Amino acid sequence: MVHHSVAERRALARALTRIENGDLSVQDELRAAWSATGAAHRIGVTGAPGSGKSTLVSALARAWRLRGHSVAILSIDPSSPITGGAILGDRIRMRELSGDPGVFIRSMASRGSVGGLSAAAADAAALLDAHGFDFVVIETVGAGQSEVEIARLADTVVVVEAPGMGDDVQAIKAGILEIADVLVVNKADRPGARKTVAALQAALDLVPQTSGHHGVAGTALSDAALDAGWVVSVLQTTATAAEGVDALVDMLALHREWLHVSGVGDARRRRRYSQELRVRLREQLLLRALQILGGDGYDAALREVAAGRRTPLDAARELAAQLIIGSEL
Amino acid sequence: MVHHSVAERRALARALTRIENGDLSVQDELRAAWSATGAAHRIGVTGAPGSGKSTLVSALARAWRLRGHSVAILSIDPSSPITGGAILGDRIRMRELSGDPGVFIRSMASRGSVGGLSAAAADAAALLDAHGFDFVVIETVGAGQSEVEIARLADTVVVVEAPGMGDDVQAIKAGILEIADVLVVNKADRPGARKTVAALQAALDLVPQTSGHHGVAGTALSDAALDAGWVVSVLQTTATAAEGVDALVDMLALHREWLHVSGVGDARRRRRYSQELRVRLREQLLLRALQILGGDGYDAALREVAAGRRTPLDAARELAAQLIIGSEL
Repeated sequence: MVHHSVAERRALARALTRIENGDLSVQDELRAAWSATGAAHRIGVTGAPGSGKSTLVSALARAWRLRGHSVAILSIDPSSPITGGAILGDRIRMRELSGDPGVFIRSMASRGSVGGLSAAAADAAALLDAHGFDFVVIETVGAGQSEVEIARLADTVVVVEAPGMGDDVQAIKAGILEIADVLVVNKADRPGARKTVAALQAALDLVPQTSGHHGVAGTALSDAALDAGWVVSVLQTTATAAEGVDALVDMLALHREWLHVSGVGDARRRRRYSQELRVRLREQLLLRALQILGGDGYDAALREVAAGRRTPLDAARELAAQLIIGSEL
Repeated sequence: MVHHSVAERRALARALTRIENGDLSVQDELRAAWSATGAAHRIGVTGAPGSGKSTLVSALARAWRLRGHSVAILSIDPSSPITGGAILGDRIRMRELSGDPGVFIRSMASRGSVGGLSAAAADAAALLDAHGFDFVVIETVGAGQSEVEIARLADTVVVVEAPGMGDDVQAIKAGILEIADVLVVNKADRPGARKTVAALQAALDLVPQTSGHHGVAGTALSDAALDAGWVVSVLQTTATAAEGVDALVDMLALHREWLHVSGVGDARRRRRYSQELRVRLREQLLLRALQILGGDGYDAALREVAAGRRTPLDAARELAAQLIIGSEL
């Protein structure tokens, strides 16, 4: 693991703040760091509030530290889009880790759109990766679309559940099971843990296996990769007592090895780059298009829409046809 | 109110399915309907699961029906992005309304990205509006970014709370209070209702008033509009007993009148059109850019990114500079 000086940590923290604020000057650091990315194991951790996710991430960090690895933890909170405020709960428990130079902890809240947060999280993860942390954990709350998008920034996705969280959560699970590489029932010392494990196992049987999450759909994989299909396991942990955490550490290492051997890791990375490139291309095209159009050109199109003479899609098609080189109506 | 034949309702349902599936052939209907939009009062209803939102919307629908108005209810569920499945809870209670030709109920789940659902919801709301429903309710679950985006499709936003939903929900409120035009504490017969009202009222005092939600920020308003600033009220309802629902109906009518008199309604609509136009323009620019680039051109840029030689942003900037007419590096 690398060691960072206090000055380096401060510079990193400042760069992350600029990413969070959408300050484009941080692109210089990103440009310099980009070729050094790819060494970290990026792990996405998601799950409903109350599952003890933060405590589990702290316990994981401690376990990795005992093995001599460095860890960066990026907590993403997409739930507070307007005030851009709430830092994730349980941040207090993280404090005991924060004196350790091998651990870097950072929360990011949504300042703009979901796309904005997802792009900012991608940049932040790349920067932490390039800084030589062995593990970069991307922790998110909940199970919505934005969490799924953020989880896609990871190599390995861990979905955390807790016993007895009621029917509402069961419904959410249907949407999130498919992105899990590893399932964890945390708070396993509570009543109902076995029932939750059994329910998850039963639900898993309905999800097509060998897929992992974003590895297969839409991506060509070798036969060897399919032969070596990953089977999603349900682990039990009691993070507050560090129980089951070593087994989780081992499972994550095993998944990383599988990613490498099967070729799925490369496919996921390629897909991640492609997604980022598309998001950035869309944004840059719009930026330049609005510059070229000017306020008057845009307003003229907007008036057509507001007056009921053009649908937004038709107006957009006409503008795009005028603006993209080599394109015809 | 207009009356629709069974055949018309079926055609409407089919058009909504095509919108949900991203089938572009529905643009013909949208084009024909577009100039007829703008007559309906679009009401966004959002709030955490368990607040009784669906029951409240049913009760509202019954109250409007008693006054002779027609109602379309569009339920949006962004929580299940991958399976595209879960229909909102309480759908059963809606059934009693569904035999009534003056009521149209429809659920939409996320099939693609958040942007996709928001664009689909915009098209669906426009189509329902153009079909002559007096009220179009856009009901969403939760309080995340995607819900805020969907609430922005409405003229009036109602945020629903219930007594004693714990600290987690209080935190979420911080993000969602600012989009509320009307706050409702539902399940007001439960213990703790007054406390919740008081807490909301106290929180409201911290939100800048006269703003409403999306009306003012970034939009020029006349002095008259600011003089006539809207004050967000906290109403109490017990939807299961239809208590307080008439007062809510009156408050919604009052808000609509305020929107009209103050000019804020027009400003919001203009902003809504502009947002839609931007989303569509971004999407159409990317579509045409990828066509012009071709698979090889895109893959060449992607390889540069994957090899660590270009950041996604730099690669996107270069492509955009090549593709947008009149633009230079």
